[in-house]
Amino acid sequence: MATKTLIPGYTYGTEQVAKSPIGLEDLNKLKTTVMFTSADEEALRMAGDVLEDQVEDVLDVWYGFVADHPHLLAYFSTPDGHPIQEYLDRVRERFGQWILDTCRRPYNQEWLDYQQEIALRHTPEKKNVTDNANSVDNIPLRYVIAFIYPVTATLRPFLAKKGHSADQVEAMYQAWFKSVTMQIALWSQPYTRDGYW
Amino acid sequence: MATKTLIPGYTYGTEQVAKSPIGLEDLNKLKTTVMFTSADEEALRMAGDVLEDQVEDVLDVWYGFVADHPHLLAYFSTPDGHPIQEYLDRVRERFGQWILDTCRRPYNQEWLDYQQEIALRHTPEKKNVTDNANSVDNIPLRYVIAFIYPVTATLRPFLAKKGHSADQVEAMYQAWFKSVTMQIALWSQPYTRDGYW
Ligand code: HEM
Ligand code: HEM
Repeated sequence: MATKTLIPGYTYGTEQVAKSPIGLEDLNKLKTTVMFTSADEEALRMAGDVLEDQVEDVLDVWYGFVADHPHLLAYFSTPDGHPIQEYLDRVRERFGQWILDTCRRPYNQEWLDYQQEIALRHTPEKKNVTDNANSVDNIPLRYVIAFIYPVTATLRPFLAKKGHSADQVEAMYQAWFKSVTMQIALWSQPYTRDGYW
Repeated sequence: MATKTLIPGYTYGTEQVAKSPIGLEDLNKLKTTVMFTSADEEALRMAGDVLEDQVEDVLDVWYGFVADHPHLLAYFSTPDGHPIQEYLDRVRERFGQWILDTCRRPYNQEWLDYQQEIALRHTPEKKNVTDNANSVDNIPLRYVIAFIYPVTATLRPFLAKKGHSADQVEAMYQAWFKSVTMQIALWSQPYTRDGYW
């Protein structure tokens, strides 16, 4: 997995990535809380194959959703409200990679560390740094949590597009829902008061 | 809605409730972020009727889930790990009321204020106070977020038990998912660093 990537700012598995505040034992507790099992891992592998050639279409939907909501587009914009196209474009590539990582990466310590890195990139600690963007410096936690819904619900039609059975589509969808919820639980860490996470 | 209730510690609509940090305009932004519309309000009203006489069965599932996971049961236990039955019982009644409130209450300022009250009751500021419980004083935010999954997924079979069409069940389920996600976004406020929420 240490292959070089051509996506600017995508530092998965490198020395530059933050360290997660938790280890595999705590991750396991989180997994059981979202009812995540090895069957979900398998369903996500299947979802990876289903989504692989649809990533751009999925991103069109999500970016369209953000663009339609000024209170969301603001976080890809300058402080005085002008959207920054280069920032949008660069993040989009990493967002696409994340879809496949969610499906295909083993959820190990390296993965946990990159979760922390993504988390920090939504907060004042690292927002804008990767892309040298002249944007506002924090994405409010409440919107990050709220985004669980669109990122889950709008994926479902794409999971159904490759002729899998209703049961298989449902299994992929639930596995995705669990994983996204778990990841946002992880991403909440740098937002949280000391000792409250 | 100012009727007296017999549920101990349930203070909805009273002077004792905390004040929400946000108003209806910000709530509206949150609603659009979880794609919540008036169709969801209607679906939740229907869900209220479907769930009304199943509340105890739903609570059996959720309490069973907590009881099966020592890392969750710990938050209803003494600091040295003994579950507190009276605490479990008292919270259970308010939890049941919350199911119906989620379906039936108008999401107005009074509702926002009680969201803040529930949030605080999961944190050191108010945990244990309502029931005078001798328990640990914080529920980690990551578990509160993770709990979105079981509280959503396990509800689905109950929504399907009253003979509604597949489309109606799906509409109720999605509306519930949106509402729970939005509520947890609200509940994250007292956990969050100043300015990060
Ligand atoms: C379910 C919730 C969310 C998911 C899954 C998600 C996913 C991602 C991913 C995968 C990245 C790129 C990570 C990397 O650098 O490798 C990213 C970055 C970013 N996201 Fe999110 N995001 C979520 C919520 C939000 C919300 C609500 C906004 C507000 C519009 C937002 C705005 C951004 C921005 C501006 C960046 C670039 C941050 C930087 O400067 O590096 N995200 N997000
Ligand atoms: C989706 C996430 C959650 C929901 C919807 C939820 C719902 C509720 C509700 C409705 C109440 C009663 C509020 C009132 O006093 O009127 C409550 C209290 C409580 N919940 Fe949660 N909860 C969630 C996550 C958790 C988690 C992960 C735990 C950990 C086991 C937990 C443990 C408790 C405890 C101990 C209380 C009593 C707090 C007190 O001392 O007043 N909750 N919850």
